[in-house]
Amino acid sequence: MTVPTIGVTSGDPGGIGPEVVVKTLARAGRLPQAAYVIFADARILEAEETRLGLRIQARVWPADGPAEPGVFLADVPAPEGRAALGEVTAANGEASFRAFEAAVGRARSGRLAALVTAPVSKTAWVLAGHPFRGHTEYLSRLYPGAVMAFWSERLKVALLSHHVSLREAVEGVRREALLDFLRSLHRGLTRVPGGPFRLLVAGLNPHAGEDGQMGREEIDEIRPALDLASAEGLPVAGPFPPDTLFLQALGKRDEIVVALFHDQGLIPFKLAAFTSGVNVTLGLPFVRTSPDHGTALDIAGKGVADPRSMEAALRLAVGFSATGS
Amino acid sequence: MTVPTIGVTSGDPGGIGPEVVVKTLARAGRLPQAAYVIFADARILEAEETRLGLRIQARVWPADGPAEPGVFLADVPAPEGRAALGEVTAANGEASFRAFEAAVGRARSGRLAALVTAPVSKTAWVLAGHPFRGHTEYLSRLYPGAVMAFWSERLKVALLSHHVSLREAVEGVRREALLDFLRSLHRGLTRVPGGPFRLLVAGLNPHAGEDGQMGREEIDEIRPALDLASAEGLPVAGPFPPDTLFLQALGKRDEIVVALFHDQGLIPFKLAAFTSGVNVTLGLPFVRTSPDHGTALDIAGKGVADPRSMEAALRLAVGFSATGS
Repeated sequence: MTVPTIGVTSGDPGGIGPEVVVKTLARAGRLPQAAYVIFADARILEAEETRLGLRIQARVWPADGPAEPGVFLADVPAPEGRAALGEVTAANGEASFRAFEAAVGRARSGRLAALVTAPVSKTAWVLAGHPFRGHTEYLSRLYPGAVMAFWSERLKVALLSHHVSLREAVEGVRREALLDFLRSLHRGLTRVPGGPFRLLVAGLNPHAGEDGQMGREEIDEIRPALDLASAEGLPVAGPFPPDTLFLQALGKRDEIVVALFHDQGLIPFKLAAFTSGVNVTLGLPFVRTSPDHGTALDIAGKGVADPRSMEAALRLAVGFSATGS
Repeated sequence: MTVPTIGVTSGDPGGIGPEVVVKTLARAGRLPQAAYVIFADARILEAEETRLGLRIQARVWPADGPAEPGVFLADVPAPEGRAALGEVTAANGEASFRAFEAAVGRARSGRLAALVTAPVSKTAWVLAGHPFRGHTEYLSRLYPGAVMAFWSERLKVALLSHHVSLREAVEGVRREALLDFLRSLHRGLTRVPGGPFRLLVAGLNPHAGEDGQMGREEIDEIRPALDLASAEGLPVAGPFPPDTLFLQALGKRDEIVVALFHDQGLIPFKLAAFTSGVNVTLGLPFVRTSPDHGTALDIAGKGVADPRSMEAALRLAVGFSATGS
């Protein structure tokens, strides 16, 4: 039996990443069949198992053997071998960065069909000398066509820009950039089950500018980009008034909303998807998903973290791998 | 028995305003007891009743008599005495403007405790020579401290700016303007039942700027405004990351989110409140509410308009009048 191999990183050891990984993979029997390979420091993972009273019983990953169903460990030693719980430290940052880099390396060389990443701390990465704003920004460096998207049954959203100021995001709404983005997104979606997907593009201004009365980006940038995209055969529509678009797209399985900036997409996504939302990077040669929450340092080590978004991320990674790569 | 007098305008005759007014007031027995006074052209209203097969049986409003429960008509003749259904015309615009202006005049002179306005077309107002961007902008001219807010059981939102481009809205996030706004909002809320209300202020940038890494408005403008507001005793908090704030505020009856621009507030509000959302103008000497939808020209005259938001607007107007003015 062939199963996909899914890499899983446990994220910043100071946050809830290790906890949600242990909670989901200790009960891997409830998940779709796959080879789940955890990239983490074995000692940190074991400490988390002990704290939670759960056992994953991961086997050593035979990286070059055939994929069998089960849970495996690819040990990536961290500088200190233990977590500074609830803290933002260089050691925590180095631990999560090393594990992520090791997993990406395996994915790039074709050993992983998908990669599921628990949350990291950008600040800890910076302290450790890795100035990326997150997983997606790291992957964008390797794959310039990478697209950040958010996936749930009820709503799907792709972000034209993410971790930049609103001012900078507004400046970035240009016809060439939007056209490139729509091409990347469409290409990235071709491998995703459930398609073809229609791309519904939000306006930037209230009421999508109302014929230029409240902003001209719809007329000068967005509409021209959509016209060019349509002419290329891309299934695009818009620009739509942002305040009603997300409501319209709710529950439509084959529609994805293109949000022009971070919060235009994430405010509605977090309201609509809540515990079941998954962050997806499209446009890579492998699938990458991630739970839709942060490190949550304030509750780290307390055993109260909700693993549902991580579980959804694992399920989606397997689901996408079935068709993809 | 003393009941509040509630003025009701039926909005643009080309849209669904007259329909939702007739649908709700033909069954006024289901509404809280009040004197509901419709400001409209009697002929347009009667045509709508005939089309819907509903009768309001409004009595002539004795503007100077005591308020009795029931539905009344203050006839405001329109230029043509009939609706250009589904169209944007100067005559439609003049009709809705005259009715609104007449009702505001009565409210200003203390004859109405509240005013409930059905949707108008800004473009029709412009065609008729009344270049206001909406009811709130007209009222802001008379009452500079007017605040546009959106009200539902699940979520309450106030907007720092509304009908301006996003670029202009970003420029407008200044400490003095925000401080003035918070003062006006707090003052406007003192008369509203269910308080005191906490004002939760959203950030402008992703993750509220993350210590200036993605935009400095939180540090340079918003936080200083909140510090000054707190020092004056206003119950404010923030700035919060916009993408999780609305979820946090959901279901909290005594919290109101301050959104810094139109869609930051209205995207989540429309998702959370849907058919029961009400637009409220605070900071006037009378209460003003309005359904949370537009003229919907495409379905005008078809009898399919959903009157629930208008009903919610009428109920809220009566509810607020009980304590207010």
